[in-house]
Amino acid sequence: MSDSDPSLSKASALAPWRSPLARALHRNRSQPHSRYFQLATITPAGRPANRTVVFRGWLADTNTLTLIADHRSAKVADIAAHPWAAACWYFTSTREQFRLAGPIQLVHTADRDAALTLARQNSWEALSDKARQQFYWPHPAQPRSADTAFDPRAIDETPPDDFCLVLLAPHQVDHLELRGDPQNRTLYSHHADAIWDVNAVNP
Amino acid sequence: MSDSDPSLSKASALAPWRSPLARALHRNRSQPHSRYFQLATITPAGRPANRTVVFRGWLADTNTLTLIADHRSAKVADIAAHPWAAACWYFTSTREQFRLAGPIQLVHTADRDAALTLARQNSWEALSDKARQQFYWPHPAQPRSADTAFDPRAIDETPPDDFCLVLLAPHQVDHLELRGDPQNRTLYSHHADAIWDVNAVNP
Repeated sequence: MSDSDPSLSKASALAPWRSPLARALHRNRSQPHSRYFQLATITPAGRPANRTVVFRGWLADTNTLTLIADHRSAKVADIAAHPWAAACWYFTSTREQFRLAGPIQLVHTADRDAALTLARQNSWEALSDKARQQFYWPHPAQPRSADTAFDPRAIDETPPDDFCLVLLAPHQVDHLELRGDPQNRTLYSHHADAIWDVNAVNP
Repeated sequence: MSDSDPSLSKASALAPWRSPLARALHRNRSQPHSRYFQLATITPAGRPANRTVVFRGWLADTNTLTLIADHRSAKVADIAAHPWAAACWYFTSTREQFRLAGPIQLVHTADRDAALTLARQNSWEALSDKARQQFYWPHPAQPRSADTAFDPRAIDETPPDDFCLVLLAPHQVDHLELRGDPQNRTLYSHHADAIWDVNAVNP
């Protein structure tokens, strides 16, 4: 797997942190916010940025997380400038945290990879109408437009150009369980060829 | 206020984003996790890092958030290398997000500022015994020590050398309310002398 192309993680075996993360998602499934996490990036100016995003599932047959983004949003500019991100995923019911850091990649309308183009199309089709409407809204972070600019419109089956699929391929995962006494913390570090170091460490 | 010394924000007027943030804290107060947020920093190697931290209240008479950190933790090294951070605070009940970015500063045992030394002492005294014990634990992120290394010990009234107070003085605040239709988003940008620009923008 190259640092710059998380899509190349395809066909790798299930990473050892997938099982505890699946368990956390299951145990916290009653809360919609359990599918949200915070994504840290570095801006073109070299400062950290952080925002909540929605987990959109796994890229097929990989350990790569998918999310979506608007091409006009600041996070897309961040990723283009610094293609590495750090997710922090806190599960409120089970009181555990996963920190997942690794290369991050945009799949946009001009992408020529057939599998990624299909993944982008599938992500678009899987979205609710309400979520899809947002990609037709006026430019994010610009002065507030009139309410009529947000009126619902017909949704195309082809994703609009501003719709990006985002791929995060963790290379380092830090799992902290606050409920232990003392707390339990496990570090997972990725090596080439789907090999992971797994170490119990002090919290 | 200088970029590098958030403590100088003292005696500034209440920033205009304090009122909506206070309202969010109040409306979500039944959930302990409403006092947690995610803090993004940049590592000495230039990569983003992200972790959940606990809000420890305001530095007296300022708009500066306080948190605590162990001097042995990676976040302290990050802050020393890049004294700017981006907090992301998502409130699950009211479905709103505050992103707060600005200079971040460590107050450690060697600090000579009388007010900050007092603030550090007060933060130590305000902690639960359970939280204070953690500063006597073995080195974080090192191979897991025997359970006996985590046995409770007598707590000093003087904070241990590894106890750091951390000060985050937001210069930019981005408030997003997901419940609006369309969503409401407000940007607050700090200027000299406690003057803030406040702008309604597109979500």
